[in-house]
Amino acid sequence: MRKIGIQQIEDIALGASLLGAGGGGDPYIGKLMAIGAVRECGEVTLISPEEVPDSALIMPIAMMGAPTVLCEKGIGGTEYKRIFEMVERYFGRKVYATMPMEAGGVNSMLPIAAAARLGLPMIDCDGMGRAFPELQMVTFTIGGVSATPMALTDEKGNSVIFETITNHWTEELARAVTMSCGGSVTCSLYVMDGKTMKAYSVHDIVTRSEQLGKAIRNVKNATSGTPEENFLAFSEGVRLFKGKISDVLRTTDGKFNLGRVQLEGIGDCKGHHGEVTFQNENLCASVDGKILATAPDLICLVDTETFIPVTTDGLKYGKRVLVVGLKCYPMWRTPRGLELVGPRYFGIDADYIPVEERVKGGAVNV
Amino acid sequence: MRKIGIQQIEDIALGASLLGAGGGGDPYIGKLMAIGAVRECGEVTLISPEEVPDSALIMPIAMMGAPTVLCEKGIGGTEYKRIFEMVERYFGRKVYATMPMEAGGVNSMLPIAAAARLGLPMIDCDGMGRAFPELQMVTFTIGGVSATPMALTDEKGNSVIFETITNHWTEELARAVTMSCGGSVTCSLYVMDGKTMKAYSVHDIVTRSEQLGKAIRNVKNATSGTPEENFLAFSEGVRLFKGKISDVLRTTDGKFNLGRVQLEGIGDCKGHHGEVTFQNENLCASVDGKILATAPDLICLVDTETFIPVTTDGLKYGKRVLVVGLKCYPMWRTPRGLELVGPRYFGIDADYIPVEERVKGGAVNV
Repeated sequence: MRKIGIQQIEDIALGASLLGAGGGGDPYIGKLMAIGAVRECGEVTLISPEEVPDSALIMPIAMMGAPTVLCEKGIGGTEYKRIFEMVERYFGRKVYATMPMEAGGVNSMLPIAAAARLGLPMIDCDGMGRAFPELQMVTFTIGGVSATPMALTDEKGNSVIFETITNHWTEELARAVTMSCGGSVTCSLYVMDGKTMKAYSVHDIVTRSEQLGKAIRNVKNATSGTPEENFLAFSEGVRLFKGKISDVLRTTDGKFNLGRVQLEGIGDCKGHHGEVTFQNENLCASVDGKILATAPDLICLVDTETFIPVTTDGLKYGKRVLVVGLKCYPMWRTPRGLELVGPRYFGIDADYIPVEERVKGGAVNV
Repeated sequence: MRKIGIQQIEDIALGASLLGAGGGGDPYIGKLMAIGAVRECGEVTLISPEEVPDSALIMPIAMMGAPTVLCEKGIGGTEYKRIFEMVERYFGRKVYATMPMEAGGVNSMLPIAAAARLGLPMIDCDGMGRAFPELQMVTFTIGGVSATPMALTDEKGNSVIFETITNHWTEELARAVTMSCGGSVTCSLYVMDGKTMKAYSVHDIVTRSEQLGKAIRNVKNATSGTPEENFLAFSEGVRLFKGKISDVLRTTDGKFNLGRVQLEGIGDCKGHHGEVTFQNENLCASVDGKILATAPDLICLVDTETFIPVTTDGLKYGKRVLVVGLKCYPMWRTPRGLELVGPRYFGIDADYIPVEERVKGGAVNV
């Protein structure tokens, strides 16, 4: 058990932008909400999964929809309280704690804001260990946990409770309501007991995020090694490519931001060609036509100088980036995990091979 | 208090197709469901509004979506029970009775099926006195009654509870879910107490519907007067036009069936031209360019021989129809009523004038 204040929020947000793997939304706006809530209501207590009683009722908090909409439309002052009351009323029990469902991107921040405003502790875990675009893409789905009852509310005061036959149906119906509410809503889903949370969540991911953020912030202060070496060491990242963005192609299917970024090699990658495709998050990285990493491993583009992660929204011509692969949470590498978030689910015609195996023998420097 | 059996269902369904004013869906498929339920579970007890205690909890039942989808997709055996359990759980109280929200079209039948299957009495009232296309278009909205909490379920087993800030928002969000569920769902909305039901519902509309159906069935058996005279007498209808359908133009905006039917005068209307526009229901009838009736008055097209109502779905070239205007429920003629369902809401550039005033002095026979 420890406290999360403003410096911790800054670091968690920076780490979360790396775990977002290009997606999940820039945590900036969420960071402002978390800081605002902590300034108003005091620091948040972070507890480890092991500290939670098996029978405790856990209410995860997330935003659903387009993070870019969130920047325009915001979250009012009443959403968390309304969700909290809906959940307590539905279950007829007290909520013990909240937790993030998605450690990557803006959803790393909103549970902090909710915890501060509701006076609840937040658990150091999530259901992804990264960011993913659809709500059934969580470790809890692997564990057979239902996303519903799911409570959803918008900033105007409309609220909805879903009970669905599968988590894909939750995604379908909640997505439709989210669009009708203007593109972004606040919700609680996968409400569960402490025992389930302990069994299936990605433990200690908030702390991991904070450590990553702190390390990025201090990447140039190390006494030995180059900043790049330091970055790869603390992020446990596999270096995939280094290049200058030569083109960005974007499309949308109404629900997701789809696209493809072209990279012209620089430094030791000069003369080679890199490509990263994305659907909100980065999905597949290849060099000279050879796939080096796919979802569910994390494919992260970071600035070659500052090592600050670049979200897919922020990709632009001329930017120099290091492409890094991070191992995903082991549960995603199981058959059930790959069925949910493997490359084929996203339309990539390739079997999943762990990033560290794909680059064995140094495919990086070509 | 009286019983509703198969003959009553037949008559109510026929009357409901007149009160549908062209829309609300052909009650045929609903009739089969009501008859099936009564055969399996026994006759339904119909009670008058006055028999209901002020504090009783009333659970109206309706389908939302496209009646034509209902023909393909049906309603399974479990929807009414699920809605019932959702409502009782939400309110923490026993449901006393059900009622129709819409006396016109297919929604006249589903509450009978629900009442039979749940062993509940049905109240002899509704919230429209006809059919309308959107869920906020009920007398209860005039009375300031909230449509929510609204319970919705599909035939697959997905269910949703809405709480919205206005009845327009209920329409917006429930419509989105209905579309995602495949275009038709079962729901309960405007759950209310007996006192509210008595204050704002259209009383005795089920009995009125049954009487209309019985009269249509017997229209040729009268001992005096022509069948047309008899039809106009018992329906209290204003004769607007008699013609042969010369053209039907249909469009859709994804949510509604829109269109326009052209009529070439026959009999005493020969040489004149009639036109009826519709959005699910008939909205406006004019002869030689002069408006003779608009919503919220009921504009009904009936077969000139059998006097069986023709729904907008059933309009086709060559069919001979009598166009009749029926006075709407008086509450619709108030300023608040006209704001909800007056001609301007439906995009008709005309003030509302009651049908009986528009045809004063015999505009009918031109």
